[in-house]
Amino acid sequence: MVIMTTTSSLTFLPVLERIAEEIGRTPGRGRPADYIPALAARDPRSFGMAVAELDGTVYGVGEWRQPFSTQSITKVFTLALELAREGDELWEHVGREPSGNPFNSLVQLEYENGIPRNPFINAGALVVTDRLQTRTGDAADTLLAFLRAESGNPDLDFDRQIAASETAHGDRNAALAHFMKSYGNIENAVPTLLFEYFRQCSIAASCADLALATTFLARHGICADGTRLLTRSQAKQINAIMLTCGTYDAAGDFAYRVGLPGKSGVGGGIIAVVPGRCTLCVWSPGLDERGNSVAGVAALDRFTTLTGLSVF
Amino acid sequence: MVIMTTTSSLTFLPVLERIAEEIGRTPGRGRPADYIPALAARDPRSFGMAVAELDGTVYGVGEWRQPFSTQSITKVFTLALELAREGDELWEHVGREPSGNPFNSLVQLEYENGIPRNPFINAGALVVTDRLQTRTGDAADTLLAFLRAESGNPDLDFDRQIAASETAHGDRNAALAHFMKSYGNIENAVPTLLFEYFRQCSIAASCADLALATTFLARHGICADGTRLLTRSQAKQINAIMLTCGTYDAAGDFAYRVGLPGKSGVGGGIIAVVPGRCTLCVWSPGLDERGNSVAGVAALDRFTTLTGLSVF
Amino acid sequence: MVIMTTTSSLTFLPVLERIAEEIGRTPGRGRPADYIPALAARDPRSFGMAVAELDGTVYGVGEWRQPFSTQSITKVFTLALELAREGDELWEHVGREPSGNPFNSLVQLEYENGIPRNPFINAGALVVTDRLQTRTGDAADTLLAFLRAESGNPDLDFDRQIAASETAHGDRNAALAHFMKSYGNIENAVPTLLFEYFRQCSIAASCADLALATTFLARHGICADGTRLLTRSQAKQINAIMLTCGTYDAAGDFAYRVGLPGKSGVGGGIIAVVPGRCTLCVWSPGLDERGNSVAGVAALDRFTTLTGLSVF
Amino acid sequence: MVIMTTTSSLTFLPVLERIAEEIGRTPGRGRPADYIPALAARDPRSFGMAVAELDGTVYGVGEWRQPFSTQSITKVFTLALELAREGDELWEHVGREPSGNPFNSLVQLEYENGIPRNPFINAGALVVTDRLQTRTGDAADTLLAFLRAESGNPDLDFDRQIAASETAHGDRNAALAHFMKSYGNIENAVPTLLFEYFRQCSIAASCADLALATTFLARHGICADGTRLLTRSQAKQINAIMLTCGTYDAAGDFAYRVGLPGKSGVGGGIIAVVPGRCTLCVWSPGLDERGNSVAGVAALDRFTTLTGLSVF
Repeated sequence: MVIMTTTSSLTFLPVLERIAEEIGRTPGRGRPADYIPALAARDPRSFGMAVAELDGTVYGVGEWRQPFSTQSITKVFTLALELAREGDELWEHVGREPSGNPFNSLVQLEYENGIPRNPFINAGALVVTDRLQTRTGDAADTLLAFLRAESGNPDLDFDRQIAASETAHGDRNAALAHFMKSYGNIENAVPTLLFEYFRQCSIAASCADLALATTFLARHGICADGTRLLTRSQAKQINAIMLTCGTYDAAGDFAYRVGLPGKSGVGGGIIAVVPGRCTLCVWSPGLDERGNSVAGVAALDRFTTLTGLSVF
Repeated sequence: MVIMTTTSSLTFLPVLERIAEEIGRTPGRGRPADYIPALAARDPRSFGMAVAELDGTVYGVGEWRQPFSTQSITKVFTLALELAREGDELWEHVGREPSGNPFNSLVQLEYENGIPRNPFINAGALVVTDRLQTRTGDAADTLLAFLRAESGNPDLDFDRQIAASETAHGDRNAALAHFMKSYGNIENAVPTLLFEYFRQCSIAASCADLALATTFLARHGICADGTRLLTRSQAKQINAIMLTCGTYDAAGDFAYRVGLPGKSGVGGGIIAVVPGRCTLCVWSPGLDERGNSVAGVAALDRFTTLTGLSVF
Repeated sequence: MVIMTTTSSLTFLPVLERIAEEIGRTPGRGRPADYIPALAARDPRSFGMAVAELDGTVYGVGEWRQPFSTQSITKVFTLALELAREGDELWEHVGREPSGNPFNSLVQLEYENGIPRNPFINAGALVVTDRLQTRTGDAADTLLAFLRAESGNPDLDFDRQIAASETAHGDRNAALAHFMKSYGNIENAVPTLLFEYFRQCSIAASCADLALATTFLARHGICADGTRLLTRSQAKQINAIMLTCGTYDAAGDFAYRVGLPGKSGVGGGIIAVVPGRCTLCVWSPGLDERGNSVAGVAALDRFTTLTGLSVF
Repeated sequence: MVIMTTTSSLTFLPVLERIAEEIGRTPGRGRPADYIPALAARDPRSFGMAVAELDGTVYGVGEWRQPFSTQSITKVFTLALELAREGDELWEHVGREPSGNPFNSLVQLEYENGIPRNPFINAGALVVTDRLQTRTGDAADTLLAFLRAESGNPDLDFDRQIAASETAHGDRNAALAHFMKSYGNIENAVPTLLFEYFRQCSIAASCADLALATTFLARHGICADGTRLLTRSQAKQINAIMLTCGTYDAAGDFAYRVGLPGKSGVGGGIIAVVPGRCTLCVWSPGLDERGNSVAGVAALDRFTTLTGLSVF
């Protein structure tokens, strides 16, 4: 895999530079997530953005090589890893529809017999990780190995401090897991599942790492080494779920402003896919009230506006 | 209005013919909506599909010139007409996010102080029609005039029998309207609003009519006569809402299978937009359990698969 | 002041006088209901309290002869009138269980297919009035005739100004009625029902009138003229519902503090029953946050404490 | 402890005998709880009933000395023990209002920031046990000691098999506990709390034991040894909560049919209080659809009908 060689493929570098310059002039960045100390400590002025081309070239601006906490972005990769193993049967245990109001998460689970609406709300991600754990015996390690391979970065690792913090503040996820288990929709012991889940969320990676790790979705399911992880149809499926459910309760706004399949995390990162063309990852720790990076959404908005790559 | 002139623009006709042939061989069409007699009487084997090019050329297969009841498809047009008049202030009265479980519609309204999640659930469409009524004094007539102009078909009209049937079975919509009025989010008298709303839903039109009437969205806001109805940004906004919220509780599935902004109605019609390229309208009265035309979704699925025009 | 003459039955007059004196020294009365102007205008310092003995003797303190707006107190009487006509079949259309959080009123109706939890929440009272209207053709007039007969006061009447105000602010009740009608649980046209319902709530009566009108419940179903309206079992049924559901979302507190079957109204009145012994009515327009008269609850609390008549 | 000495106090024995005879002739007993094997194995034809007088005399009919699983009946005693220790501050952590529809338990917690509606729903009982654990360090042992002292039966004990079964099926309670902990309304570690809670529910006792153990509520707070556990007001408070919330989602029906403060458990037992007079305990394992003993409710219904002791 190549980081950057031929100038011909640095297509979007001027665009990234313009965006970074604009973002640098913009005040107002939101506030970092504050429910765990390790996230709250990040500087909201930090900003990085990377593009990965289909051939593995990656380039970026700002702090695009600075590792940050991936958090919910990892939900995309565990979904891919488990969908590859289980196929369509997975959809009997987790839905593919937007979840609507976060207020309704628990009543929704009760109303729909413990089947979460989609794999990107916490309840759904717990189901996916639970099933990956059943099939692999080490869900978080399987994920880490995949991210190392796709990013070409063997130094990617868990952040033990963050995993411990998440565990200490993990009662809501524990409630979700026990509740779904009461419906028979969780297979492993809840403490085991939570251990894997919080480790998964704690992985630190940079914009460069994540843009590269996401390219299998832009390549319709083909990994960095040329092997096929997902069928073309499955890759399309994940892209569709990212567009409709990838940014918490702001999927509608994100679809309008950015118009690309994307997935955000409370660490301030967002990945996005231009199917058949490239992937992006942007990072800035300041969040809006719905948990998405303020500068990150703004940067992706500018990118699709400037390049005309938006879906709509 | 021109049906077909230059052969060069009948690009997708062979694709449509192949789809019609496949659909014709497929058993199982779902059941027509049965809550009002006029809809229940339609033959579930009926099928028509039309494509409208940006230049106003339209062509199709099957019963593509047969009028059917547009129902919720009209929500797209009233949204465009009101957004053009009111601009972004509209979004203070109706949201742009998927609604999640239909079960929660009323509790969502209560939780969010009478602001519906998006303009395509019934509560949201009532708000849009209410505001259009305030601005025009004759919301349904304004809509009809627009559809006649865009389709080039002066014979489009309300179906009085269907409007009467809807009114007779309209208690749930009446409940929604009164409930939102109790929060101050409905401006007109509820009976006036319901009269306009049920007339709006009763308009009969063919696939040809609707494909043509939708082209302003593929043309980024430009009407058939070259005038601009919406800004480019507003057109993009509506397309994004169609993709994330256009097919009731199946938006995720629709995004995955079809991958185009679309809007369905319980009359069995579905419109879809390929931004910058063309529009489609398909019709078959048999519905799945979530209220979308079975053959219609299948036909659009095949279209994007065969043409590669899917977003993802 | 004394209506009837035998001194032997003025048992509780000293207690009432002590309570009135205590209440007079207590600051803090809450605020009158403000959703309609006619209620908001009442002086929160007003206070009256009456006791009616089983033999029809009535006496009181303070403004016990001053008419006020009965509002939800009338729900007790329409329930009795309809239960007398329909018997246990009524319970197939309205439940007898506490409703819990008011927030859930609509989702409860949706979850339980349009059957309200009990006859004292608005949805349940609408069902009762609807059914009484079906059986009598003039529900509100039937109620008024009953109240006049039981109170011995032919001057009781509707307050047209209040009925008109309620109608003007009646969207939430209209929503409930239409919503239940969509489940087939309302028989009359919604405007007809609301007309009867708002007239019912508008009846003005004094503490003396209401204490006397309630005595049929203390007499286990026997009216003032000695005829039987309810079976002993039905009277017990209504008393039980008053205890568990009579004071909105404060039934638990009321049961603890007062320990008697009671029903409050936002006009500031509360009726209470000591089965087999007497009835009480207290009035003071200032309400607490849950819609019950502050001084009214305090007075009943003192009454049961001083007399030892509490159930517990 | 005295079983029976003076003939004068066996007041209700003939009534009990008549009830037992009637129940014996009645077919249809419902089904034992089946979510844990140890409960499902009980014979639904079993029946016992005991009365305890204020002086400690106890007598009964049928299997009134047969131990059964107390389950939710213990919630009354932990509430008394904790209310005695903490006083009114307890009510800042758990409410006193009926909970309405069981469906809404979780959404209610979410809506009201983790404060359960009352101490007799599972969420509320978990809060009470949690706080008792904080104050005692051994909540379940404290409860057991109290029950032994009040019943005069030193052989009362936990049923380890049932406690283990409950733990194995305890995901819903674990979900509730974690969920409330996420709101800061649980003080102890969730596994510690659940260990205490399931041991508490597992205590086996007979009708005789429980009738005696409940008499402190009929004696307005005075224990068997003459010491005061609760103030008169606190005893009244608990009786009121039993009447309005003691029988799951059937409190309204129970109030109407029985008209006494009562508390049921899924083991088939029900305790009831005639304040100032006596207590009752009835047991029969067959349950109705709402979790209350079919023969138990019928027996209490007959008791209040035959003795006229009903509240209403």
